[in-house]
Amino acid sequence: MNDIKNQVQIVLVETSHPGNIGSVARAMKTMGLQNLVLVKPRNFPSKEAFVLSGNAQDLIEQAVVVNTLGEAIKNCTNIYATSARTRSISWPIITAEMAGIEINKFVREGTKVSIIFGREDRGLTNEELQKANKHILIPSSEDYPVLNIAMSVQVIAYEIFKNADIEVDINWQDYPELNSEELSMLIDHFIDTSYKLNLFDEDNAKKILVRIKRMFTRLKPDKMEGNFLRGFLTRINKKIK
Amino acid sequence: MNDIKNQVQIVLVETSHPGNIGSVARAMKTMGLQNLVLVKPRNFPSKEAFVLSGNAQDLIEQAVVVNTLGEAIKNCTNIYATSARTRSISWPIITAEMAGIEINKFVREGTKVSIIFGREDRGLTNEELQKANKHILIPSSEDYPVLNIAMSVQVIAYEIFKNADIEVDINWQDYPELNSEELSMLIDHFIDTSYKLNLFDEDNAKKILVRIKRMFTRLKPDKMEGNFLRGFLTRINKKIK
Repeated sequence: MNDIKNQVQIVLVETSHPGNIGSVARAMKTMGLQNLVLVKPRNFPSKEAFVLSGNAQDLIEQAVVVNTLGEAIKNCTNIYATSARTRSISWPIITAEMAGIEINKFVREGTKVSIIFGREDRGLTNEELQKANKHILIPSSEDYPVLNIAMSVQVIAYEIFKNADIEVDINWQDYPELNSEELSMLIDHFIDTSYKLNLFDEDNAKKILVRIKRMFTRLKPDKMEGNFLRGFLTRINKKIK
Repeated sequence: MNDIKNQVQIVLVETSHPGNIGSVARAMKTMGLQNLVLVKPRNFPSKEAFVLSGNAQDLIEQAVVVNTLGEAIKNCTNIYATSARTRSISWPIITAEMAGIEINKFVREGTKVSIIFGREDRGLTNEELQKANKHILIPSSEDYPVLNIAMSVQVIAYEIFKNADIEVDINWQDYPELNSEELSMLIDHFIDTSYKLNLFDEDNAKKILVRIKRMFTRLKPDKMEGNFLRGFLTRINKKIK
């Protein structure tokens, strides 16, 4: 069974307008999605969110409110972020259509998916964007590429729903992948170790940190690899002390 | 050049909420569309439409307001309508994705396209739906298939924009097709003639009328065929008198 309803969650970061939360809920429900997570919404619960959700008030009632993005995604293995901004470092990027196909593949494999949407005015910070394995691009006009947040959710949810029957299975993995929290810990472990090994200059530290995060989120290590890398880092740290 | 900006128009029939008109304009502009036609909007111009259009205020300023759907589409050759309702008689139907590809084909051929969206609460009447050559279906959840009007515009405009580069050209026609007004006149001519020939029972008249409209809109006769059919009907009428 293709269970996008239970395995895909939409994460909204610091949404300002409660009406947008309502519109997002409606957009989700029209495409069979159910799980809405709100990271520090400015005004929630609110009547406006209820009104604009139409018949998706159940999604608003069941929405989970958390304080940090890390908390929102910690049990997910596949993290997508949406962004219209250009960034100092490029990140693996995928179109909405390809994301729709890929997300269905993850759902069939039984792993959890988060799709993160940023603030109405400022989108996501670089740090937030770097928590994602991939960024989703919605093709749009150069003149005015700025979709409203609920519109972005609608288009991506539509691509997921539309492609629910398309099987593109390329299963080669022996072990499940690390979830977001496990991966964050591994990255921190690696960065911490690199610091101790004096691998960062004042000048390049920030850029290299970003590249490290990108490398690991792109790699998506499985549990076996994760164990090996953790052991590897632990060994090094014992040597340093 | 693929000129969707000039050759595709979005037609909103009796929209109640001006905010929706604004959101539609924004959705259109993000996907490179420009021509908005409003059939008897309840409240327009309005400040709310401007506010919700974001940076698409130019589309609101240039929006054309008309009194009838016929007037809105009269110069178009390819008419699509959107509807979530089930109807007494089925009509040629196409998914949003296939419509996106097909509309780009029409644009490349230089013919004009209208996409009609109905009232927020009641959609389009059967008569309005029957002016379309095809109906567009946006795949959606059985539990709650009701997309907001601006969301429907966003998804369909996205499919048009996304598929602008996909060429599926199957050109076999020698002559351009009749536009909507010419086709309506031909259909009326045919129906009028059929009446005179006593082809309608009290019982079946309404259903047959619908089937005739469907047949002609599906056929999309070209100018040559149109001329022939008009001549044919004129001949018959002379015989009847």
